[in-house]
Amino acid sequence: MTNSTETRERMPINFSQKLDLIADLWQPRVVAEMNDYQFKLVRIEGDFVWHDHPETDETFIVIDGILRIDFRDGFVRLGPGEMFVVPRGVEHKPYAEREVRLLLIEPRGVLNTGNAGGERTAANDRWI
Amino acid sequence: MTNSTETRERMPINFSQKLDLIADLWQPRVVAEMNDYQFKLVRIEGDFVWHDHPETDETFIVIDGILRIDFRDGFVRLGPGEMFVVPRGVEHKPYAEREVRLLLIEPRGVLNTGNAGGERTAANDRWI
Repeated sequence: MTNSTETRERMPINFSQKLDLIADLWQPRVVAEMNDYQFKLVRIEGDFVWHDHPETDETFIVIDGILRIDFRDGFVRLGPGEMFVVPRGVEHKPYAEREVRLLLIEPRGVLNTGNAGGERTAANDRWI
Repeated sequence: MTNSTETRERMPINFSQKLDLIADLWQPRVVAEMNDYQFKLVRIEGDFVWHDHPETDETFIVIDGILRIDFRDGFVRLGPGEMFVVPRGVEHKPYAEREVRLLLIEPRGVLNTGNAGGERTAANDRWI
């Protein structure tokens, strides 16, 4: 290990610091990419719309709060340090009684409302 | 929402609970898949080998502890709630002065030692 190695420190992505920069709810912001996948942070509160993503699975990792994801035939409840992968084509509806801070992982280009569209559709590929 | 919806509760993946089941260091265990990607939990301590993954980026998310990843021209230090994506083809060497608990995300089939091989290569695709 040389001295020059010591001096070039790269910065990690800190989820809490990034989330503190996000002012608006339900507006995912991209923080990193891995191949053609994106890592998105989002603050949510309340009820979302039923939708699915016919082409891809979608990963939810909770940073803060309690997230409930409803399915047509059940639900899952996630707290901090928990994850769930919603399989492609499975209708789901996220719900947060109080604010939840989430990390989403999905392929680049996936819209938050999937195939449902409508006024809840957020701008895509916005970085923070 | 019907009563039957209420009754079918799915279970999330709890990182800490899964990590507590892992007895051995440096042995990644798969906990979930998203399309052709895998989520792997691993406990590490000490020094790993220099290696790279020529075909894919690799994502590190720290659950517990302080991880250092050395590169040939620098390093990054990650704590809990922080992530870093090592680009494909970039040589790196993870290092943990004390135990670190990690979530790794990478395509199915990626070996922990990448193109380096050797005795530190862990069995692949082991679930927990």
